[in-house]
Amino acid sequence: MASVKSALSYASANFAESVQDLASFIRFESIGTDTKYKRQTAACAGWLAKHLKQIGLEHVQVFATKNHPVVYADWIRYPSKPTLILYGHYDVQPVEPIQEWVRAPFKPIVSGNYIYGRGASDDKGQLLAHVKALEAFLKTQRQLPVNVKCVFEGEEEMGSPNLQNFLHTHRDLLKADVAVLSDMAIMAKDKPSLTYALRGSLSVELEVRGQGVDLHSGNFGGAVHNPLQVLCELLAKLHDASGKIAIPGFYASVKDYEQQERAYMARYGPTDKEILQNARAAKGWGEEEFTAYERTTIRPSLSINGIVGGYQGQGVKSVIPSKASAKLNFRIVPNQDPYVVEKLFRQYIKKLTPATVTTHVHANLHARSYEIGVRHPVLQAGKLAYARGFGVAPVLTRIGGTIPVLSLFEEELNIPSVLLGFGLPDDRIHAPNERFYLPNFLKGIHTCIWFMAALSKYKLSAKKTGKAAVVSEP
Amino acid sequence: MASVKSALSYASANFAESVQDLASFIRFESIGTDTKYKRQTAACAGWLAKHLKQIGLEHVQVFATKNHPVVYADWIRYPSKPTLILYGHYDVQPVEPIQEWVRAPFKPIVSGNYIYGRGASDDKGQLLAHVKALEAFLKTQRQLPVNVKCVFEGEEEMGSPNLQNFLHTHRDLLKADVAVLSDMAIMAKDKPSLTYALRGSLSVELEVRGQGVDLHSGNFGGAVHNPLQVLCELLAKLHDASGKIAIPGFYASVKDYEQQERAYMARYGPTDKEILQNARAAKGWGEEEFTAYERTTIRPSLSINGIVGGYQGQGVKSVIPSKASAKLNFRIVPNQDPYVVEKLFRQYIKKLTPATVTTHVHANLHARSYEIGVRHPVLQAGKLAYARGFGVAPVLTRIGGTIPVLSLFEEELNIPSVLLGFGLPDDRIHAPNERFYLPNFLKGIHTCIWFMAALSKYKLSAKKTGKAAVVSEP
Repeated sequence: MASVKSALSYASANFAESVQDLASFIRFESIGTDTKYKRQTAACAGWLAKHLKQIGLEHVQVFATKNHPVVYADWIRYPSKPTLILYGHYDVQPVEPIQEWVRAPFKPIVSGNYIYGRGASDDKGQLLAHVKALEAFLKTQRQLPVNVKCVFEGEEEMGSPNLQNFLHTHRDLLKADVAVLSDMAIMAKDKPSLTYALRGSLSVELEVRGQGVDLHSGNFGGAVHNPLQVLCELLAKLHDASGKIAIPGFYASVKDYEQQERAYMARYGPTDKEILQNARAAKGWGEEEFTAYERTTIRPSLSINGIVGGYQGQGVKSVIPSKASAKLNFRIVPNQDPYVVEKLFRQYIKKLTPATVTTHVHANLHARSYEIGVRHPVLQAGKLAYARGFGVAPVLTRIGGTIPVLSLFEEELNIPSVLLGFGLPDDRIHAPNERFYLPNFLKGIHTCIWFMAALSKYKLSAKKTGKAAVVSEP
Repeated sequence: MASVKSALSYASANFAESVQDLASFIRFESIGTDTKYKRQTAACAGWLAKHLKQIGLEHVQVFATKNHPVVYADWIRYPSKPTLILYGHYDVQPVEPIQEWVRAPFKPIVSGNYIYGRGASDDKGQLLAHVKALEAFLKTQRQLPVNVKCVFEGEEEMGSPNLQNFLHTHRDLLKADVAVLSDMAIMAKDKPSLTYALRGSLSVELEVRGQGVDLHSGNFGGAVHNPLQVLCELLAKLHDASGKIAIPGFYASVKDYEQQERAYMARYGPTDKEILQNARAAKGWGEEEFTAYERTTIRPSLSINGIVGGYQGQGVKSVIPSKASAKLNFRIVPNQDPYVVEKLFRQYIKKLTPATVTTHVHANLHARSYEIGVRHPVLQAGKLAYARGFGVAPVLTRIGGTIPVLSLFEEELNIPSVLLGFGLPDDRIHAPNERFYLPNFLKGIHTCIWFMAALSKYKLSAKKTGKAAVVSEP
């Protein structure tokens, strides 16, 4: 306990420096999805590796992948204590629409209790909370409570396309008992929550190709089937009037949850009103028989993320584009297989495609959903850590987002993961003016300190996570 | 006749220089719709004014408007001969999608029988055919066959927003008997056509606004009505299954054409096959009871020109955009009023808008359709000019495009217009790799020479054009 106390004190006393380090981290334009930023993304990885070395981690390595590197470091001392993988990602989302940012996305600024910048919350700030917890132990004790291996990737926002191969190739190096990651929001500033389930994700691009060239809509309007029109007509058929996804067979394998689980969700989860407030939405939408919390966690969704086709500039352009495409994102739930969903989508689109055009589907992300048993010892360690770090016991929550690495850790390393989120629902992740609430950055560092301390008391060995979650009030 | 012959010879002998002048003209990035190009557009006007002065026109003036200037010049000598307005536009369409251009759009190049570049056909090449005809007369005779006033504007591609005011303000300066303009395609290389009717145009922007901020489609997918989805659902309701526009009341005032007119169109107009070949479309689409030629001329159309919303970049971005909008373009036909169409559209959208979002309609172009009586003397002069310039009599045609200036000339100056097109259907106007067929550039100059010569024999006075066109085989 003495070691924990001095680590906590160190973290508090050096918090201003931690904020400065976070600002330095945000300054890198590590937009992993856009090849234009490859060099800046690599520079970001280099900075992170150097920082890990500076705080006292060992075997620091930047592993090249086909795209953006994985930053690795470890500290291994105890044969009989658990080994913890710290996972995080240093890549960030694109910044469009850039004109809606009040400040430049990569010039972080502290204003009030927030630090603003792309990646502040997702995931640079949350990743750094763990790093700062390691620093606190190493600077005050010259040791950590458990064995630690850091795995920080640069491709999370593009669906971690090379991570599975990395984990598989280095499965001996990465042998561990449990992984921890922080890449989500808690329910509110003083209401920590421990995520035990996430939705999976399937991203597809649907392209409609019509005539061979762009046409003048004056000269040709009325004679050809505008691909942009066909695209809209197809997209309009993806949902029915009740808000359900209209793809035949889509709901066939969706898991039904027991009343006990839904009652727990209703009691401890966010209300419809809270979710709509966070979304700044006047009205909700979707399957009437489910709450907004359920619709975003235990129910699948399908979102149009963007449409490309025709003229998007200022003013008018009388064009019938030769092709048009839409970026679509499914969020899928337990028992749904992303590859089956892709197949059903392809069949449906094929059936709907009129003879005047051709359609083409390209899938670029397949991630299963994730659930961990609520009585799992690592989840108990997480609960304890939050209770100490935030001074209040966490609620067990589901979130609607996806962290593909969770199922990869399970598949490749056969270990469970625990998710310690330090973000807030209004952090505007993936949107303009992203920010991170600084008091939770410090509480996050403290929580990470407590988590390692709690974990050091468990005897763990690699085992399967309990996929069939039994929820009871903790 | 001697004067015509020497002018024709001059035009042929100096054609290489004319092509060079056209290349110089194309090099100006005169994208009038985009404020970024304001300076280049002004420079283009300056070049044109200088060129008019060099060839011997008088009273050359660059009139400022609220946006892009009007280039004016005249040559007035004969109290008893007709005065002809030469109208053209030096502004061009945007170049997106830029990556589909094989060569840079503003670095014109001659390859085979074509000159390539944005504006080569629409309208710089066709405008210059008239200028080169003036030059041929002035260099060989030191005089023109008729009085001439040049009115070259820089805002045609944005709907000529300041032209009406310009014509109204300068209606004494612009007093004339007839206008001629060349801003369209003939039917084929050796098949000239004389356009006697055009559709009108109404451009509207439809915006759907949902929640106040962009959201993560993982965290919020399923809880809010995605504005991009709503937009698609609205756009999908603009046409019915038969290809008709589904806006209630839309067809109420659409003019019915007599069998005589439709028979003439069927006999001399392009076939469905030809139109689809020009469009590089495998299959046609639209109102079954009309031919493709009819569907693009005497029937209205509604095209989606572009959709703005969500993420359009490389890769994926899990976003539910807070708003989305579509650029729409109606082409309207005789007896339809663009303001009535706008009203009907607004009513329909209002009725369809779900309670989860708000919709906003912005109209930015209202142009009526245009028809001139086929027995009108200026049309006869045009027929003669084509017959001599191309060596073959023209077919009288309708086109689906819009030249808003036609109804403005009628309303403000009370004069008819004749349309001598020199473009080809596959010039790719408004699309990547626009080009102009050089043999028709020369034939166009010759046709303009013949047109002025023919016109010099008519006694004309300002009169209303016959709006109710009686079509009979010429």
